[in-house]
Amino acid sequence: MDEIKIFSPASVANISCGFDVLGFCLGPVGDEMIIRKSDSSGVKIIKIEGQELPLDVKKNVAGVAAEALLNELKTERGFEIEIYKNIKAGSGIGSSAASAAGAVFGINELLNKPFTAHELINFAMEGEGLASGSVHADNVAPVLLGGITLVRTTDPIDVVQLPTPKELTAVIMHPKIELKTVHAREIIKKNVTMEKAIQQWGNLGAFVSALYDEDYDLMSRSLKDEIVEPMRSLLIPEFESLKKASKDVGALGFGISGSGPSVYALTKGVDTAEKVYEAINEIISSIGIDFEIYISKINQQGIKILPD
Amino acid sequence: MDEIKIFSPASVANISCGFDVLGFCLGPVGDEMIIRKSDSSGVKIIKIEGQELPLDVKKNVAGVAAEALLNELKTERGFEIEIYKNIKAGSGIGSSAASAAGAVFGINELLNKPFTAHELINFAMEGEGLASGSVHADNVAPVLLGGITLVRTTDPIDVVQLPTPKELTAVIMHPKIELKTVHAREIIKKNVTMEKAIQQWGNLGAFVSALYDEDYDLMSRSLKDEIVEPMRSLLIPEFESLKKASKDVGALGFGISGSGPSVYALTKGVDTAEKVYEAINEIISSIGIDFEIYISKINQQGIKILPD
Repeated sequence: MDEIKIFSPASVANISCGFDVLGFCLGPVGDEMIIRKSDSSGVKIIKIEGQELPLDVKKNVAGVAAEALLNELKTERGFEIEIYKNIKAGSGIGSSAASAAGAVFGINELLNKPFTAHELINFAMEGEGLASGSVHADNVAPVLLGGITLVRTTDPIDVVQLPTPKELTAVIMHPKIELKTVHAREIIKKNVTMEKAIQQWGNLGAFVSALYDEDYDLMSRSLKDEIVEPMRSLLIPEFESLKKASKDVGALGFGISGSGPSVYALTKGVDTAEKVYEAINEIISSIGIDFEIYISKINQQGIKILPD
Repeated sequence: MDEIKIFSPASVANISCGFDVLGFCLGPVGDEMIIRKSDSSGVKIIKIEGQELPLDVKKNVAGVAAEALLNELKTERGFEIEIYKNIKAGSGIGSSAASAAGAVFGINELLNKPFTAHELINFAMEGEGLASGSVHADNVAPVLLGGITLVRTTDPIDVVQLPTPKELTAVIMHPKIELKTVHAREIIKKNVTMEKAIQQWGNLGAFVSALYDEDYDLMSRSLKDEIVEPMRSLLIPEFESLKKASKDVGALGFGISGSGPSVYALTKGVDTAEKVYEAINEIISSIGIDFEIYISKINQQGIKILPD
């Protein structure tokens, strides 16, 4: 195989009680990428459509991730990358993760899989570092593994795949205002009170248990974030009214996707997701901001290979 | 039934990554209590053996817990309590929890169970408040429910019962020095860094997942505490060498039980527990402190009714 075409999906990180550790993979939205073997060594990004992003491999998350993989292999092999972006950069649903994960996934396939999906997270994470200013894996992990993932630690990387309750459904709304991850990180405090930290890990432990037991009531009780959301939600128009409206029609939880401005809701079943969709749509339509909104099951597969 | 005799077991709270939320119930060590109906209303503690503890119901955790239950029922019924303490107060293995949980369990049985075990946690927790200076449920919950429990929150109380992997075994060592919970709480900082808080909830989430998946390697990687242990371990003789020796012979984790001075290790299987027992025994014997040490499976039943 000399060339591969893939779909690299969007993802939601920082799921309420799981700041910096929990993420899940989305279905309908994602980038397409073509990766092909080249005669010259190293990585070249030869085309990017859909977004203004640098072709320079040192300044592009896909390039940095791809080079990290090739450096580990100490290979002289070379690859060309074409990126067709559908995920807007700075939207909070893992735009850079899709590019970084897609690049290493594609190259790994063309090399007959020298690395496991877990190992690829390391390289993709290096790409992510360029976008966010710090190393984190809570978007690249669910994109590479599919489903819901917990990043126990990034040093060294240790990712746990969590079960996905059958009816769990996400609603994502992306208000078209840009919020760079690096800025959203700046408003996070360096310290938290012990009291709030204990609440957060109590909620996270309970949420993990609820995923295993398919206990939707417990998911609802534990999808809380009193640490990051109170600060970051101030940057998102109508956050509190969107949250209240979503919960009022049955959302299990509602929070900021990644570092925003996108928001997510989780529901039990598609019917409730449609009600949440309508509730969000009504509020955000009324304030004159351009936005996108869609419903997605949790994507169990992650990146997928497309036919030529 | 006019009288009931029960065994109320010891327990381990603050399991490494689960400070203030995770606890498990022990098997071999516990108090015995006799609770009987009385003609006069209210609660009387008529006998305490094995420890110097106040008979005054307002100053005894069993009395406070029992009164909380009777107040909720608005009943004129009365009960006498006899307590035969085997768990040393201030040892860090839930001495006050055993008394508080035992009292409400016994009275509830004599009243034909108006409350569920989950509901009893509320009353037992009120008793615990007297001992620790703050409301917490991470000892009373495993004593009343059995097994391993996660206290998501205490306001209102919300406790999740977690699965117990079959081979999970505990080793407990109690150095006979007293450390009051209220003092051990004082040395805990009011704030933690965001970085360490994230590590802690990553570890807790992973540990909960590992219990469901019976993944002993992941339990071992996630049984860490970089928040409370670095402070409290300074109060415990030979903590670091006990920890290293336990891990060297295969312990999955080693940490402070409750607020100390007892320490716990968790192992996969009794054989490894015996090696940990020997390793701890050798070190602590050499420093001339009186101590107790024992091996226990996780007690799935919790409090048990004894024959007359």
